[in-house]
Amino acid sequence: MYELNFGVPMAGAVICTLNAHHDAAMVSVLLKHSEAKLIFVDHQFLTIAEDAINLLSQSNSKSPLLIPIPEPSEDSSHSPGLNYESLIKTGDPCFDIKWPIDECDPIALNYTSGTTSRPKGVVYTHRGAYLNCISSILFSEIRTLPVYLWTVPIFHSNGWCLTWGIAAQGGLNVCLRDFTAKTIFEKITRYGVTHMTGAPTVLNMMANCPLADRQPLAAGQMVCVMTGGATPQPPVLEKMEEMGFKVVHVYGLTETYGPATVCEWKPEWDELSVDQQAKMMGRQGIRHIGTEAVDVKDPETMKSVPADGKTMGEVMFRGNTVMNGYFKDLKATEEVFAGGWMRTGDLGVRHADGYIQVKDRLKDIIISGLENISTIEVESVVYRHPAVLEAAVVGRPDEYWGETPCAFVQLKDGASADAEEIIGFCRARLPDFMVPKSVVFGELPKTSTGKMQKFVLRERAKAMGSLFMNGGGKMLEI
Amino acid sequence: MYELNFGVPMAGAVICTLNAHHDAAMVSVLLKHSEAKLIFVDHQFLTIAEDAINLLSQSNSKSPLLIPIPEPSEDSSHSPGLNYESLIKTGDPCFDIKWPIDECDPIALNYTSGTTSRPKGVVYTHRGAYLNCISSILFSEIRTLPVYLWTVPIFHSNGWCLTWGIAAQGGLNVCLRDFTAKTIFEKITRYGVTHMTGAPTVLNMMANCPLADRQPLAAGQMVCVMTGGATPQPPVLEKMEEMGFKVVHVYGLTETYGPATVCEWKPEWDELSVDQQAKMMGRQGIRHIGTEAVDVKDPETMKSVPADGKTMGEVMFRGNTVMNGYFKDLKATEEVFAGGWMRTGDLGVRHADGYIQVKDRLKDIIISGLENISTIEVESVVYRHPAVLEAAVVGRPDEYWGETPCAFVQLKDGASADAEEIIGFCRARLPDFMVPKSVVFGELPKTSTGKMQKFVLRERAKAMGSLFMNGGGKMLEI
Repeated sequence: MYELNFGVPMAGAVICTLNAHHDAAMVSVLLKHSEAKLIFVDHQFLTIAEDAINLLSQSNSKSPLLIPIPEPSEDSSHSPGLNYESLIKTGDPCFDIKWPIDECDPIALNYTSGTTSRPKGVVYTHRGAYLNCISSILFSEIRTLPVYLWTVPIFHSNGWCLTWGIAAQGGLNVCLRDFTAKTIFEKITRYGVTHMTGAPTVLNMMANCPLADRQPLAAGQMVCVMTGGATPQPPVLEKMEEMGFKVVHVYGLTETYGPATVCEWKPEWDELSVDQQAKMMGRQGIRHIGTEAVDVKDPETMKSVPADGKTMGEVMFRGNTVMNGYFKDLKATEEVFAGGWMRTGDLGVRHADGYIQVKDRLKDIIISGLENISTIEVESVVYRHPAVLEAAVVGRPDEYWGETPCAFVQLKDGASADAEEIIGFCRARLPDFMVPKSVVFGELPKTSTGKMQKFVLRERAKAMGSLFMNGGGKMLEI
Repeated sequence: MYELNFGVPMAGAVICTLNAHHDAAMVSVLLKHSEAKLIFVDHQFLTIAEDAINLLSQSNSKSPLLIPIPEPSEDSSHSPGLNYESLIKTGDPCFDIKWPIDECDPIALNYTSGTTSRPKGVVYTHRGAYLNCISSILFSEIRTLPVYLWTVPIFHSNGWCLTWGIAAQGGLNVCLRDFTAKTIFEKITRYGVTHMTGAPTVLNMMANCPLADRQPLAAGQMVCVMTGGATPQPPVLEKMEEMGFKVVHVYGLTETYGPATVCEWKPEWDELSVDQQAKMMGRQGIRHIGTEAVDVKDPETMKSVPADGKTMGEVMFRGNTVMNGYFKDLKATEEVFAGGWMRTGDLGVRHADGYIQVKDRLKDIIISGLENISTIEVESVVYRHPAVLEAAVVGRPDEYWGETPCAFVQLKDGASADAEEIIGFCRARLPDFMVPKSVVFGELPKTSTGKMQKFVLRERAKAMGSLFMNGGGKMLEI
């Protein structure tokens, strides 16, 4: 997949990397929507691809040519038929690169991970990819000859544009098939990894893995971890820094080529308590050098909210590193660009120093009585409970309040806590109206890129019914 | 001058910084040619500017408005009339930045330092400046919050585009009025300088300054020095590395926004001898990420020379970080772009690994008999003589050979050597035809940006007459 991020555009084509967790039905939908002509498939996903192509042919759609990628150990020269390695061998080393005619021509098509709706095809241009790639290596301080560990999927915004960025700096790419904390620590030590990237869940996995699976960094080894995709929780940040990692918190969407803002560390934060530092680091920060503008605006009036750290608005972007639009979906494109800015669907605030902070997804925020409750803020408190591995808070329907916060919690292995304890812990740290009224324990549903699937949890909370018992608003805890 | 690199373009105007060493006559020529509307003048150059404006008005040309920049210590609020500080005070803090309408609109006009002919006005675009600025901070590894010492003049290619680059990374600018090795070392220690830039003559000054004027770097302090403008000599590179500086050798011209190639260090060079390493570092290297293409071509046929490290051709550039053209000089623009590439006037070779190396200026190379002699190669040997501070080699007319190498040498303070010794030193290290046949001692003439004024030396060599005495080609050494 890494090689194809170069070979496909250099052949004048557009690369569309598919999520490795899709099933055949989804793959067939995306093959059809993307009008793919060739599909390169790693040997472990061959059945899914073949099933997808069968589905396509049943619907009378033109099927792409399937090119299997054999196992690296296989001697592919003896395999029958066309495969990736045999195809490469037929190549002309003097092939003239097909440069784009216009730098705004597409280089990639990325389907969004679809936490809510059907995936949308985000169109990247050569210009945008170049600028975001350069910006990402700059703010994450990826210097010459980095050693990069791929803990973010390359099918996710072309690896946050770092597929190209690592090559630009002459880096070594360390890839993973076995995605466990143990393997991650092993690779970091073995290859002298300097940079990696991952959703907060990856950091969480590393911070909470058994001691036996951990390996300390080598003397003088500094690993910079870019994290984003969800707001990292302060306890996880603290733990990572403790283990010697330098965490850089970035924020962006598939629509912004991956990272668009960075929580640039300020020297004056050195004086803060560890706790305060982690809070500061949880901010989404300021635009990076390739982002023309980020703002927090009232989505109705399009006016910027005051920089008071309190007034919420929608986070919006503008510039070269914002997608061209959604492929074959003019309606969705017009909606997301309504008012001349790209609307993220994230609710946030602007602090006095210009740093932005995301408080919630527009559709996740809980409206309880007259109050807006940021589920991210409630989660950050639940996370601080020592028994909690991961937590997600959603609104639970309530006949009196409209909605009340409901916490879904996954405990650490061997740890124990009951609902009462979690609620008490929150009550000591949050205003009453923000305290979860119910707590549910169990494993949390996530997308393949590590994003919490809150719509699944909202369904569960809905199925639980209203907590409201009588007119006095008395609450029962489960 | 640093502030004006931002304020002028943000006001929608074009900045043209003039060389601080020009006299009133040259300044008046450039004010007229550039059609300047305002001239900001540091207090120490007021007389020159006033004289230049007088000259302008005598020639019936429209004079720009002169705005003096008072001494920082002066309380300018009491000074009569308009000055820089009082002008700034009238500014509107809510002024809307005047963005360029097109990114290819000009941002700066830079007059070349003019080693040979009348200065030419090189036009920079916003697009090119952005790309070269980003590239420069990347390859010189200028990370977040650098401390930058201005040892390269800001009037030289807008400080190699680092005026903007240092701001992009949130850096601290340390400026110098007193340009001595002693002050340079003092500022490095005092401000914890992380990066600086300078012509090889600056490095030479630092490497050869009295021990009493030197200050060792602080423990853990790493200073990265970008050097370019002339080929740095191996002994100087060795000495700088010895003192703990990391030297990055870059190559470019005013026409390429400053640096266009960089001699990127290769890990396998770590195994070479110090001497060999310095030789490798003397190469001009490979294009940086903002340069579309660099090539070494036969200037007649426009064919690339073979990558054999021997065949010479003219170094040529193409891409976004090449100037728009010379202001109001279509003829010179057409000449320099003849064949679709920007011709540098530098002769070089391509090595097998793709690194280029400049051997000489097209006009400096010595043609002796049937041989082309690279004056840079001869100089690099002369430089290795322990008594030599600086050296420049030019062709001296010769009735038999056409030209023979003549070395102009400036000795280190207190050191001594005669012509015979220098010639003998070279004979032991160079093929006979490259050995200087004459040596002249004394101070060497340089431009304000530290470039050797070889045309002055060629005049001197010419005035010395031919060495040829009789038909046998017997040489006399002076």
